[in-house]
Amino acid sequence: MKAAIVGGTGYSAVELIRLLHHHPYVEIETIVSHSTAGQEMDTVYPHLTQIIQQPLDQLDVDQISNKVDVVFFATPSGVSKGYVPHFLERGVACIDLSGDFRLESPIEYEQWYKKSAAEEKYLNQAVYGLSEVYQNEIKESKLIANPGCYPTATLLGLLPAIQNHLIDYQSIIIDAKSGVSGAGRSQSLATHYAEVNENLKAYKMGAHQHIPEIEQMLKVESGSDLQITFTTHLVPMTRGIMATIYAPLKAQIKTADVIHLYKEFYEKHPFIRVRNEGEFPATKEVYGSNYCDIGLYADDRTGRLTVVSVIDNLVKGAAGQAIQNLNIMNGWDVQTGLTNLPIYP
Amino acid sequence: MKAAIVGGTGYSAVELIRLLHHHPYVEIETIVSHSTAGQEMDTVYPHLTQIIQQPLDQLDVDQISNKVDVVFFATPSGVSKGYVPHFLERGVACIDLSGDFRLESPIEYEQWYKKSAAEEKYLNQAVYGLSEVYQNEIKESKLIANPGCYPTATLLGLLPAIQNHLIDYQSIIIDAKSGVSGAGRSQSLATHYAEVNENLKAYKMGAHQHIPEIEQMLKVESGSDLQITFTTHLVPMTRGIMATIYAPLKAQIKTADVIHLYKEFYEKHPFIRVRNEGEFPATKEVYGSNYCDIGLYADDRTGRLTVVSVIDNLVKGAAGQAIQNLNIMNGWDVQTGLTNLPIYP
Amino acid sequence: MKAAIVGGTGYSAVELIRLLHHHPYVEIETIVSHSTAGQEMDTVYPHLTQIIQQPLDQLDVDQISNKVDVVFFATPSGVSKGYVPHFLERGVACIDLSGDFRLESPIEYEQWYKKSAAEEKYLNQAVYGLSEVYQNEIKESKLIANPGCYPTATLLGLLPAIQNHLIDYQSIIIDAKSGVSGAGRSQSLATHYAEVNENLKAYKMGAHQHIPEIEQMLKVESGSDLQITFTTHLVPMTRGIMATIYAPLKAQIKTADVIHLYKEFYEKHPFIRVRNEGEFPATKEVYGSNYCDIGLYADDRTGRLTVVSVIDNLVKGAAGQAIQNLNIMNGWDVQTGLTNLPIYP
Amino acid sequence: MKAAIVGGTGYSAVELIRLLHHHPYVEIETIVSHSTAGQEMDTVYPHLTQIIQQPLDQLDVDQISNKVDVVFFATPSGVSKGYVPHFLERGVACIDLSGDFRLESPIEYEQWYKKSAAEEKYLNQAVYGLSEVYQNEIKESKLIANPGCYPTATLLGLLPAIQNHLIDYQSIIIDAKSGVSGAGRSQSLATHYAEVNENLKAYKMGAHQHIPEIEQMLKVESGSDLQITFTTHLVPMTRGIMATIYAPLKAQIKTADVIHLYKEFYEKHPFIRVRNEGEFPATKEVYGSNYCDIGLYADDRTGRLTVVSVIDNLVKGAAGQAIQNLNIMNGWDVQTGLTNLPIYP
Repeated sequence: MKAAIVGGTGYSAVELIRLLHHHPYVEIETIVSHSTAGQEMDTVYPHLTQIIQQPLDQLDVDQISNKVDVVFFATPSGVSKGYVPHFLERGVACIDLSGDFRLESPIEYEQWYKKSAAEEKYLNQAVYGLSEVYQNEIKESKLIANPGCYPTATLLGLLPAIQNHLIDYQSIIIDAKSGVSGAGRSQSLATHYAEVNENLKAYKMGAHQHIPEIEQMLKVESGSDLQITFTTHLVPMTRGIMATIYAPLKAQIKTADVIHLYKEFYEKHPFIRVRNEGEFPATKEVYGSNYCDIGLYADDRTGRLTVVSVIDNLVKGAAGQAIQNLNIMNGWDVQTGLTNLPIYP
Repeated sequence: MKAAIVGGTGYSAVELIRLLHHHPYVEIETIVSHSTAGQEMDTVYPHLTQIIQQPLDQLDVDQISNKVDVVFFATPSGVSKGYVPHFLERGVACIDLSGDFRLESPIEYEQWYKKSAAEEKYLNQAVYGLSEVYQNEIKESKLIANPGCYPTATLLGLLPAIQNHLIDYQSIIIDAKSGVSGAGRSQSLATHYAEVNENLKAYKMGAHQHIPEIEQMLKVESGSDLQITFTTHLVPMTRGIMATIYAPLKAQIKTADVIHLYKEFYEKHPFIRVRNEGEFPATKEVYGSNYCDIGLYADDRTGRLTVVSVIDNLVKGAAGQAIQNLNIMNGWDVQTGLTNLPIYP
Repeated sequence: MKAAIVGGTGYSAVELIRLLHHHPYVEIETIVSHSTAGQEMDTVYPHLTQIIQQPLDQLDVDQISNKVDVVFFATPSGVSKGYVPHFLERGVACIDLSGDFRLESPIEYEQWYKKSAAEEKYLNQAVYGLSEVYQNEIKESKLIANPGCYPTATLLGLLPAIQNHLIDYQSIIIDAKSGVSGAGRSQSLATHYAEVNENLKAYKMGAHQHIPEIEQMLKVESGSDLQITFTTHLVPMTRGIMATIYAPLKAQIKTADVIHLYKEFYEKHPFIRVRNEGEFPATKEVYGSNYCDIGLYADDRTGRLTVVSVIDNLVKGAAGQAIQNLNIMNGWDVQTGLTNLPIYP
Repeated sequence: MKAAIVGGTGYSAVELIRLLHHHPYVEIETIVSHSTAGQEMDTVYPHLTQIIQQPLDQLDVDQISNKVDVVFFATPSGVSKGYVPHFLERGVACIDLSGDFRLESPIEYEQWYKKSAAEEKYLNQAVYGLSEVYQNEIKESKLIANPGCYPTATLLGLLPAIQNHLIDYQSIIIDAKSGVSGAGRSQSLATHYAEVNENLKAYKMGAHQHIPEIEQMLKVESGSDLQITFTTHLVPMTRGIMATIYAPLKAQIKTADVIHLYKEFYEKHPFIRVRNEGEFPATKEVYGSNYCDIGLYADDRTGRLTVVSVIDNLVKGAAGQAIQNLNIMNGWDVQTGLTNLPIYP
C-alpha cells in the first residue's frame, strides 16, 4: 500500500514517517509540504539524514491520486477540508489528523475554530477515529477524522466510567496538561525555550477547540446533554499529555472494582494499559509509543472518581492512532507497525 | 535581631539565607545542620562561596537561645516538635516551616503524617501563618506554623471566593502541580533527573498531608464541614507551584465581577497580584519572588469558577512567607527584605 | 541619577530593570522599545505586574537627553551606532550592551557582523567595559562598549594566565557553552522549545562574532598576534555560560600555584570567585548574580592548563556588568545594586 | 538465540530490553538483578507493563549457562570480571558493557578504576568492541569489551583523521558533554533534578576512567605514544553525548576534503553519518538510535581541525553497540534489530 503525507514539515508528519518506516505493508510514496516544497526532507529534519532522501513535493491532487491509496493530512486546521473531497472522489482514502472533520456541526466548528467549516456532506461521511471505540465504523469508512490529542486521552479515560454508569455526567472536570510539541513546529513566543522552560502555564481558558470535540463524543456515549470544564496547561517537556479527570460517583464503589470494570472494557485492546490499584501512570512511561495508560482512584472521603490518563501526544494523540486506524481500515492486526516500546529513560 | 536557621542543608534553609542576606534588621547568627555539622556552608552549597563563610553548627538549645531572638525550623516533619517547646520556654520565638504545628488535631496529624504529634499545649499556641489572612494573630504570637506550599497557593486562591459566598464549599476540586524542589534535597528515585525530566507524574493520590491542612482552614473560613479533592503532580521544573481550582458557582456572576471582589479582598496586600480578565499567571512570573499571582475565570457555559494560583514554592511557599511572618511579628513593613523582583526569563 | 533603557522588550533590558530596581542611586526614567512602543511594560512582561507600570516609549533623542544622565542600549547589533553620537553630543553617557563599539577596527566589524560599522571617531572614544580589567579607563569614559557574554567569561578566565606568562598564546582553544536566553527573545526554529530541549548543538562554527572581540583583547593583553579556536554550543537551559579553556603551559606548574596567582590577580575584585583546588564551578552557582566563578587545573600528564569559567550571561555577561560599569563611572562602590545572591536551586 | 541480561535495573539493561524486543533472532531468556531479584520487571520499570512480564532472577551461573547462548553484562565496574570466566568456560559468549575488560593493562585499570583488575588471561581474550573498526576481531571472539560511551563518540570522530595522518597526535583535546542517564539510575546529589536542571557542570577533571581507554586505542591506531586532554561535562538532558574534538592539522586541507576522507572511511558503515560541509550534528538527531553523526571543520585561520561527534549514550554508547557486536559475532546484518529511527522531536 502506498501513502502520501501532507504537511511534511510538522511534527505529526515526521512522526508518521518514523512509525511508517517500520510498517510492513505501507510505503511512503510522497511527502508534501507547501512551505518547503523542493527542499530535501533531511535538510528540513537532519535526523533523517541517509534515511529519508526525497524532496518535499507540491500538493498535486491528480498526480498523488494516481500513485497512492491513502493520504494522511498532518496539516493545520482549515487545510484538509479543501482537499479531502477531491481525494475521496478519486477513490483515495483520507486520514485527517487535523480538526476539520471531527465536529459534526459546522456551526460549532466555526464558533470554536473561527474558520469556515467543511461541507456537511463530507462531515457526515467522516468517522471519528477513536480506534478502540469505533473500530466497526472505521473499518467501513474512507474518511477518518483522527481524534485530537487531548480528546484521545480524555475519552479513553472517561468512556468506561460512562458506559458503566459510574459517574454524574453533568459534573465532569478535566485538568489537562501537554508538552510543547502539541503546539507544532511553528515559532511563537509561547514556544520559545526561555519562556517555556522552568515554567507552567494555563492557556486558552474556556476556549480550547477540543472542548466541543470531547463534549460531542460524551453526548453520543452518555445519551445526555452535558458541559465539561476543561483546562489546558503547557508543561516544560516536549512530548506527553496527561488528563486528570474528576467526576462525582453515582454510588459508592471501591477503586478495585472500578479498575476491574476498566480492564474488562479494554480487554481486547492491547494499547490501553489499565494500571493496578495504587499505581498512576507518568507520561514518560508511554514516550514514543502508542499506549494510553490509565490510573484510577475512587475516593471514599469525597465520593469522587479521579482518572489519570496519559498518552504521547504525537503517537496515540496523532500519528500512532492514525496508523492504528489505517490498520483497522485494512483488516490488519491493530498493532502492525506500532510495536515499538516506550523509550525510557 | 539575630536569627538561627535549623535544617541548614535543605532548600528552604538555603532560601532563607538568600532572602535574609538583604534583610536590613536580621542577622543570621547560626546555621544548624544535624547531618553536616562541622562542614563549611559553602562546601555544602558552593554558590555561597565567599558569601556565607561559617561552619554548620550542632543544635544546642541553650547556646542558641542565648544568642538569638528567633529560630526558623526548616526541618523534615517530626523534628521541630521536639525543640520548639524548649525555645519558647527560653523566650525565643519560633517560625516552623515544617508541618508539625499546622494541624490543630493531633489525631489528624498522626493519621496523615504517620508520626506522633506535638503536645496539644503547643499546638494550641501555634498560629497558622498565612500572612495575608492571619496578620493579627501572627502579630501576637511567638510560635508560627508556616503554611505548606500547596496550602498557601490553594487558600490564597480560594478564600476570597469563600468569604464572598461565591462557591459551593462541598464540591471543591484542586488540581495541584509542583516543581521538584518541593521534595527537598534528599535523594530518591523520584527526584532523579532522568526519571523526572520530560515526565509528568501524579503522586500521593488521596494521601497528601496537605489535604487536612487545607480542609482545616477552609472549614474555619467557611464555617462548614467539607472534603476537598486534591491531586498533586510532579512537573519537570525546579521551582513553582500552580493550583488550578474548580468549584461550582452559587449564582451566575461575570469574571470581571469575581476579579473585582478578589482585588478588593487583597487590596492592602502587596504580594498578591490578581490578574486582569483573560490573563492567567505562569509559575515563572513569580520565580524567586514572594508573589502569589491569581487568575480567574467564571464560566457561563458550565456555571463553574476556575482559579489559577501560582507561587514560588520556596519563597511564598516557604522561606519568603516565613520572613513575611517575622516582619508582621515585629511590626515591620511586610515587604522588608522581600522586594526582589521575579527573575525572568 | 536617571537612566533610559533602549531595547525594552529584550532579555537584557528586562534584566537591567530587575537589577536597577534595587539600585539606590539610579531611577529608570524611560524604557524605549521600537517594536512595542505604547504598550504597557507589564503587558509585554507580565512578571512585572504592579511593579513597573509605565508605557514603553519611542526613541526621541532630544526628549530623552533632557531627562536622563545615562542611556543603556540593549539593542540588536547595528542600532546603537546610529544613536550614541547624538546622546554623547548632548552630554549623556552611553553604555552599549550590543557589539557596535567593541571592535576597534571597522573592517573587522563589517567582516564579522556583516553590517556597516560605527564611525571611527566614536569607536576610538569607546572603552571596552571589562570591569575588573579596565576600571581606570571606564572611570574616565562617557561611552562604554559593554563586553559580550562569551568574551566576558573567556577573558576573565584567561587574563591572569596571560599576564603571568603561564601559557602559550598561540594555542588557545575555547569550548564555550551557552543557555538559550543568549539568543534573545526573538523567535526562531533555533529557540523553539521542542528543538532545544533534550538537545545539545554546536553552532556558528568558526564564524561567531565574539571571536574577533576576544582576539582583540588577548592581543592587547599579551602583546602578541594570535588566533583562537572558539566553538559555541547551545545547551538546554535558559541562563548560564561556561567557557572551558585549554592552553599549553609554558613551564610545569602545580594547580595550587596557578590558583594562587589567579586569587592574587582578582584579590580586590569581589565578583570573581576563584575556586579551590579540585573544585569546578557550575553555571547554576552564579545564576541571577554578577559573579564569575573560575576553576583551574594544571595537568602534569599533558602539560596543559584547563580553565573553567562560568557566568550568568544576562548578568555578568550583560546587564550586571553594565551596572558595574555605571558604578565605576560614578565612583560608587562596584557592588552597588548588585549584592543579590545566586538563586539556588 | 537466547540471551541473558545481567544488571536488569540499570538504564543500559532496560535499553537492551527495548532494542532486543524487535530483534528477529534473539530472545531474552532471563533478566538478572542482584538488588531487585524476585520483583517483577514492570514493577521496577512501569513503562514495561504488559510487555515484559517476568520476575528478575538471581545470578546462577550454571542455570543460566544451560539456557542461554550469550550474556550481556550491564553492571557497574568490578562485577563482570568475577562472572565472565565462568560463562566462557561453559561456552557462553559474553558482551560486557562495563569497563572491566577494556583496558589491556591491569595496572592502568587499578589506577583509574581504584579496583582490582580482571585476570590477564581474560583481558587478553577480550576484543574491544568498537564495531566499525574491529569487526574482524569481534567476529572471532567470545568476549567483547563493549566500549564506553565517551570513547565511542571520541574514537569514531578521531580515527579517520588519525589513519589519514591529518593531525598532530600529541595535541588532541576533547571537550566532552553527556546527559544524565550516563550516571546510571543510582541516586546521588549529582543526579538530583534540582541540582542538574538549568545547570552545566564540569566533573572528574583529569580523572575520568575513559581517558586511558581512549588513549590505549589511539596509541594502537596511531602507533605513537600520546596523552589526551579530556574534560567531561554534565548537561541538563537525559540522553546524548557530544565530543567536540580539537587537533592541529599537519598540513593545510579544506573542510570539504576532510569530509571526503571521512565519508570514504565510513563508506560501508551505515550507522556513521558524516555530515556535509557547514552542518553540525545535534544530540537529538540521534536520540534513541544507533547512529553516530560527525561534523567537521578545518579552520584556515588557526590551522586546527574541529570534529563534532554525537551519539545516544544508551544506544551507540551502550546497548545498541552491544547488539551491533552480537550481530557481527553471528554473521548477521549489522543493522539487525537496530533500524529504528531517531525519535524527533
